Amino acid sequence: MISWKNLDTLSAYGKLKALKGRVNLVEAMAGENGAKRVAQYAAPMAGGLQFNYAARPVDDEVLDALAALADEAELTDKFAALYNGEVINTGEKRLVLHQLTRGQLGDDVVADGVNKRDFYVSQQMKAAAFARKVHAGEIANAKGEKFTTVVQIGIGGSDLGPRAMYLALEQWARQNGAFRMEAKFISNVDPDDAAAVLKSIDVSRALFVLVSKSGTTLETLTNESFVKDALKNAGLDPSKHMVAVTSETSPLAQSSDYLAAFFMDDYIGGRYSSTSCVGGVVLSLAFGPEVFERFLNGAHEADVTAKNPDLLKNPAMLDALIGVYERNVLGWPATAVLPYSQALSRFPAHLQQLDMESNGKSVNRFGEGISYVTGPVIFGEPGTNGQHSFYQLLHQGTDIVPLQFVGFKKNQAGMDVVIQGSTSQQKLCANVAAQIMAFACGKKDDNPNKAFAGGRPSSIIVGEQLTPEALGALLAHFENKVMFQGFCWNVNSFDQEGVQLGKVLAKRVLAHDTDGALKAYSDLLGI
Amino acid sequence: MISWKNLDTLSAYGKLKALKGRVNLVEAMAGENGAKRVAQYAAPMAGGLQFNYAARPVDDEVLDALAALADEAELTDKFAALYNGEVINTGEKRLVLHQLTRGQLGDDVVADGVNKRDFYVSQQMKAAAFARKVHAGEIANAKGEKFTTVVQIGIGGSDLGPRAMYLALEQWARQNGAFRMEAKFISNVDPDDAAAVLKSIDVSRALFVLVSKSGTTLETLTNESFVKDALKNAGLDPSKHMVAVTSETSPLAQSSDYLAAFFMDDYIGGRYSSTSCVGGVVLSLAFGPEVFERFLNGAHEADVTAKNPDLLKNPAMLDALIGVYERNVLGWPATAVLPYSQALSRFPAHLQQLDMESNGKSVNRFGEGISYVTGPVIFGEPGTNGQHSFYQLLHQGTDIVPLQFVGFKKNQAGMDVVIQGSTSQQKLCANVAAQIMAFACGKKDDNPNKAFAGGRPSSIIVGEQLTPEALGALLAHFENKVMFQGFCWNVNSFDQEGVQLGKVLAKRVLAHDTDGALKAYSDLLGI
Repeated sequence: MISWKNLDTLSAYGKLKALKGRVNLVEAMAGENGAKRVAQYAAPMAGGLQFNYAARPVDDEVLDALAALADEAELTDKFAALYNGEVINTGEKRLVLHQLTRGQLGDDVVADGVNKRDFYVSQQMKAAAFARKVHAGEIANAKGEKFTTVVQIGIGGSDLGPRAMYLALEQWARQNGAFRMEAKFISNVDPDDAAAVLKSIDVSRALFVLVSKSGTTLETLTNESFVKDALKNAGLDPSKHMVAVTSETSPLAQSSDYLAAFFMDDYIGGRYSSTSCVGGVVLSLAFGPEVFERFLNGAHEADVTAKNPDLLKNPAMLDALIGVYERNVLGWPATAVLPYSQALSRFPAHLQQLDMESNGKSVNRFGEGISYVTGPVIFGEPGTNGQHSFYQLLHQGTDIVPLQFVGFKKNQAGMDVVIQGSTSQQKLCANVAAQIMAFACGKKDDNPNKAFAGGRPSSIIVGEQLTPEALGALLAHFENKVMFQGFCWNVNSFDQEGVQLGKVLAKRVLAHDTDGALKAYSDLLGI
Repeated sequence: MISWKNLDTLSAYGKLKALKGRVNLVEAMAGENGAKRVAQYAAPMAGGLQFNYAARPVDDEVLDALAALADEAELTDKFAALYNGEVINTGEKRLVLHQLTRGQLGDDVVADGVNKRDFYVSQQMKAAAFARKVHAGEIANAKGEKFTTVVQIGIGGSDLGPRAMYLALEQWARQNGAFRMEAKFISNVDPDDAAAVLKSIDVSRALFVLVSKSGTTLETLTNESFVKDALKNAGLDPSKHMVAVTSETSPLAQSSDYLAAFFMDDYIGGRYSSTSCVGGVVLSLAFGPEVFERFLNGAHEADVTAKNPDLLKNPAMLDALIGVYERNVLGWPATAVLPYSQALSRFPAHLQQLDMESNGKSVNRFGEGISYVTGPVIFGEPGTNGQHSFYQLLHQGTDIVPLQFVGFKKNQAGMDVVIQGSTSQQKLCANVAAQIMAFACGKKDDNPNKAFAGGRPSSIIVGEQLTPEALGALLAHFENKVMFQGFCWNVNSFDQEGVQLGKVLAKRVLAHDTDGALKAYSDLLGI
């Protein structure tokens, strides 16, 4: 029987707090001891990746304390309960099954009378078959011309994850003969978003993927209408240009307004849906079903790794626990995600949702107030761009921000240039290595303005190349990290009640049912 | 004679600290008093905008204390010293003249024997004349075909600001007959960045703008080579496809490798250079010189407003001081920038550099350590997208994050759709009004998981439409806000020594001059 306890009631947490400030990174990372740490504090990940945490503020004693915390918090058992089908999302009384979209981790999970793994596979296969027909021209526009562009209409989890994954693999696919269709994304209710996308494409050759689990998301339905108007104005039949990704019970599921419908369910949260058909339809259309399957394989392999009860062999759990130590013991309120890969340009925005929406909570899973901090602010941009932007504060600001680097030895597009004796890719990699050390060890200088205090922690996830498998593994690593942190904090990482109040008030504004300051703001904005 | 003092030595700061927690936003914003605050706590801005700070944690007494702090910190005099040409950037012993790129605020500033306003105007005019010739086809490719695309090659301030400004006006320009050429941007040393841009354009019709003040920025020179290779491979003469934006003393200035060179100087920091020819060349090419001039006019008008010694009539100073109160007295470590405008999708990334690189400092302008916090972490995404992403944490997380909303009554593209009785634009505006109130007042609920504590502060900048003037005013507002905050914290907001150490170590990695952990990381990354 699992016991769900608040972090501050665990004796291992008390012991961890006593280790505060134990590791001086400036000293620990200097000289040959630093090299030893880089060799020692490394864990293999799925997808051929490595998680290296040498430059995070841990040593063997802190790691022992984190392992004790992992045990006492029953992280492995809680994960098992999740993938074996317990109601982990207590607020909404739902199972949490996104891992099942990419493989079977434990028992068969039967819900609503259906084996859920079979259900997710059936939707993946349906999307694959559909994509193959589109690529073969069997599903085409009214003139019989092939569709050349796929446009995803969705917001939040129906947008950020799939968009980040598409961008992550676009150049890889072009280079590896896997590029089938360009993808575009419409998300914002701001009509300028849809207008800009529609102006940039040939709508007669475009296939639209409408994504809304409930079938009632205001932004998405509004943008659907916007797109339908554009299709009609171009003399086209919208129902021949649009598919739906939704739940079987949604109003979109049986509609004749769509070429096809693909299904997810309530057991997959939006921010965890990239490996469901929310990501599967658009990615299978863009890169082919085989690439999407490789992406799923990488994610599944990472899920299997996350089952390992040995903390040192479980990078997601390690990353999670070190993060809890940094957040709750060392008191650092933000974390930056810094991929040294242009392909991952929107990966930080996806993680921002994944993490902040999952763990930005002030009550535990029983709805009781808690007296410790939970999820940090997450932000980031790709390197080296960030170096020329906000790294100044990271190096010399008054707050310490833990950093999560990602880097690959090889680039994707296969084009490069040698300048001053090195390729661009080598410069990129040299910069991330240099940054880790600059942050950790700093530099003394007689001019305090040119001095670097150091002691600024980071870890890096390193791989050969950003392939579909590596991307899947990277995504699942962070999903599982967030899950383990939620277990530590004893929050429900799978609901998002914090988004409701704004929706309710926005409806009141549109109905002109306002008074006081809400009316004043509505007037100010001309509504 | 101005005196530069640390914030914690000012008696007004001590008085401000005594007002901590004085304003309960949940109460203050409720009922008719809330409406009164919306009317009262508003200041007109340049460009037809309004700064409304009703939902920030101030009242008349706090504002009085802030006004006293502004006086004691001599903010108006310090700004005057800056625009009259004193050496404000003490670390690098430089003047700070970006305001002079858009108008004359005070005395003539003569440096290096040149009237600097005349110099900046001459470069603006040179860029305007060049753009007109390109638009007219007088400057064309070898076949005499017009250039259709402009590609900016630059990083940091040579990328984020101009890119954000381009995206901000693209739809407006298309709608208003001002769209001349599409612009693209190459920044990252990751070769996949340049590869992706080059694959997306017809290089034979592309004009490249190489931007590097020093002429030695590694990323930019590397990407220049990358582009030159691509041009040569296409049988084209790179010198007929490329212009330079640089300083007169840089190696690029007199090179025959470029069609033309446009000049900035050491008195304009990269992150403050959007209104110099760093932004001027690409924006004049994209939208015509007249639009760029309108953008400058908006910025200049905001600069003039920032001269006003009356705090309540100086939105940039107000925003700055409320921010100092939130950061130093109330202790909030991050700020989110949330434009309800898809056109401003990269504006938060620009402000992230502007703010964090300017004020992420731990020593004062004399190089002495300080004992209070300075610049916060800045992050953000456009609304309503963010609502479906990280707003959960903003509403119900354990930390309070002050919010800076931006909104416009009208969209840019002139396309819209009515669903459920309202347009998309009305829905967009209704959402921002609703969010402000949800954050401020929260909502009680018997289920604590559905309760909102409120007390989460925000301000909003509102305008009719995001025009060139409004954009210029918005940009200058934040530049001036950051400047005033730097004055309060007594830091030098115009250098960035924190970027140097990484550069030095990266060179060592590329030269294989490493040992210890730096060598270990280099090996890990395959260098």
